[in-house]
Amino acid sequence: MTALLLTGIGELTTNVADPDDPCGTRNDAAVLVRDGLVAWIGSTDAVDEALAASSTPAGPGAEVRVVDVGGRAVIPGFVDSHTHLVFAGDRAEEFSARMAGQAYAAGGIRTTVAATRAAADDELRERLATLVAECRAQGTTTLEIKTGYGLDVATESRLARLAAEATDEVTFLGAHVVAPEFADRPEAYVDLVVGDMLSAVAPLARWIDVFCEQGAFTAAQSRRVLEAGRAAGLGIRVHGNQLGPGAGAALAVEMGAAAVDHCTYLSDDDVTALAGSGTVATLLPGVEFSTRQPYPDARRLLDAGVTVALASDCNPGSSFTGSMPLMIALAVREMGMTPAEAVWAATAGGARALRRDDVGILAPGSRADLVLLDAPSRVHLAYRPGVPLVRSVWKDGVEV
Amino acid sequence: MTALLLTGIGELTTNVADPDDPCGTRNDAAVLVRDGLVAWIGSTDAVDEALAASSTPAGPGAEVRVVDVGGRAVIPGFVDSHTHLVFAGDRAEEFSARMAGQAYAAGGIRTTVAATRAAADDELRERLATLVAECRAQGTTTLEIKTGYGLDVATESRLARLAAEATDEVTFLGAHVVAPEFADRPEAYVDLVVGDMLSAVAPLARWIDVFCEQGAFTAAQSRRVLEAGRAAGLGIRVHGNQLGPGAGAALAVEMGAAAVDHCTYLSDDDVTALAGSGTVATLLPGVEFSTRQPYPDARRLLDAGVTVALASDCNPGSSFTGSMPLMIALAVREMGMTPAEAVWAATAGGARALRRDDVGILAPGSRADLVLLDAPSRVHLAYRPGVPLVRSVWKDGVEV
Repeated sequence: MTALLLTGIGELTTNVADPDDPCGTRNDAAVLVRDGLVAWIGSTDAVDEALAASSTPAGPGAEVRVVDVGGRAVIPGFVDSHTHLVFAGDRAEEFSARMAGQAYAAGGIRTTVAATRAAADDELRERLATLVAECRAQGTTTLEIKTGYGLDVATESRLARLAAEATDEVTFLGAHVVAPEFADRPEAYVDLVVGDMLSAVAPLARWIDVFCEQGAFTAAQSRRVLEAGRAAGLGIRVHGNQLGPGAGAALAVEMGAAAVDHCTYLSDDDVTALAGSGTVATLLPGVEFSTRQPYPDARRLLDAGVTVALASDCNPGSSFTGSMPLMIALAVREMGMTPAEAVWAATAGGARALRRDDVGILAPGSRADLVLLDAPSRVHLAYRPGVPLVRSVWKDGVEV
Repeated sequence: MTALLLTGIGELTTNVADPDDPCGTRNDAAVLVRDGLVAWIGSTDAVDEALAASSTPAGPGAEVRVVDVGGRAVIPGFVDSHTHLVFAGDRAEEFSARMAGQAYAAGGIRTTVAATRAAADDELRERLATLVAECRAQGTTTLEIKTGYGLDVATESRLARLAAEATDEVTFLGAHVVAPEFADRPEAYVDLVVGDMLSAVAPLARWIDVFCEQGAFTAAQSRRVLEAGRAAGLGIRVHGNQLGPGAGAALAVEMGAAAVDHCTYLSDDDVTALAGSGTVATLLPGVEFSTRQPYPDARRLLDAGVTVALASDCNPGSSFTGSMPLMIALAVREMGMTPAEAVWAATAGGARALRRDDVGILAPGSRADLVLLDAPSRVHLAYRPGVPLVRSVWKDGVEV
């Protein structure tokens, strides 16, 4: 495999933290990639020396493709730790009605469930591929994908299988809302989720998730779902505290979940608990943008010492966008994050939320997932909202 | 010249108003383009008949390139009636400081003035070309470009000449802020603007503009500038009511300006005056996004009967984006516009603000400026924020 050498990087975000700079910023930097991994990082000045030295991972005489990026910025590929990309149909009419004043409610999920159940695999696969390509083109190199628009054993299995074709980070979200057939029997639906549905899906998934919220699942139901998932070998994550105060964040911390996602309505106790835990607070500002809900207060979380991730929540109901640059711009405009904090949260933060140490960071041995920006600095992701600044994307060292 | 026929348009926005639909929507439509103009619009079913008929503008036997767009939506190219694309440098640091709490002030314009004066023509031309290409790729086919980062006779002339290389819609904005050399002598600077500077720039421009705002120019100074511009044969437009209440909107209406731009702080009298006038209220939500200022209330204006346009205000200080799709998404999220109203304002509204009847509309005889969306409906421009939905752009019938 040909090695790749990026030189002339004006600003390289490594996320190899030092006390003054969590982004581990290097200027005038170069990155050598080999076998899909970062092999070496140094200054542009040291490239010749590094290539010549026999200790250089590319090895003496190895073929190296050199790309001078002309002073532009390079960041790790985005790690989008929360998406719902396997579905059919859209909800543009519901969106228009909401913008005309109708309130957002979790029940709209069932509209997509009906469309998804009715769709053939090929239709779902084609839509998924289109959405994944959109995300990749905007710089996302690691994607979590949830099930949750099936809500029956057959469809949830189908969605997990399709998701697994696109990512290793598949999350079983049978407990998205109560399936329509069980509208009056939520406990019976939870029985199904932790029974046959979990048995069918667990072999295809890495994570289990539950929407712990008024209108979805109670704290007790959520606990049952998560405990069953954990017993089946899945890691756990939670949707919570989106539409009002609730037990989601506390439950996530108590159970050692990798992340609790949304986090708009947190008590002081929730924030304290998160700060003392290994649970990441994942904020999804695309949802607030598209539902006119209040934004979560990222500043409060960061100041308390909570680890914050940003993700897109790409789904047809509440955030039909996989644009991580938009999430960064919104985090800075609306949630009190600095551009550096937002870029960290969209890369290293997402990796923490997925308990991954091989992505979201650029260091020798990490995956060579890189994004070249058409800008001199990562700040431009917030400073130039809506402008397609992602110039090139490499995943595992291969240009997308 | 080969004719172009777009067929299979699922939703065509013509902006040929009917009482129930200002967007003049047609479904299952086709558009025939010849010689850079729209030659015919009809239903996909009628295409064969239309092509065969000798009365069809393409003429019998003419060569026609047929593009089936597969049910996607087509809209008129965006008309961005307010940009400042000729400048050097950037203000990413000022942006970061602002996001950390520093207030926006018009005085930051002088930072760009210093960089622009120091820049060679080629540097300015290259930057301008890059920004114009960014705008085009996002669907903008008509761009107004202002001077205003020179503030001396030589540089303002230079900027107008460069802008004129990129557009017919050049606006002289010598009265952007008082030039630093005249900091204590604003009246003397106005003398220069209406004297030698206007004489030098007027032959290169179509419009004159003034920033009528606390910290920029008073109502009396603004009137002097606009009267002089009008006497020199220029159309008039105004920046006003951005940072606080002021005389800008009233002056614009009184003088019959084509547009007053910003319009965040309007009195009831201002709104009434605008509603009864031929002056368009141009809203620039990219500015509020990037400065954390309050958004103007588009709903109030629309309900009062004011004609509203959306524009980007693309400039390095307060809105470094030319993305009209983002403006539409912000207008819907933040300013109470429906998706249809926002798309109209970004196309036909912009055309009104430039007093153009050949763009912003798709009808026989109008310019063939078309945008093909990767979506079934224009609603997706708001529903899918941050997603690059512009699939193809034709300007004067030529694919960009």
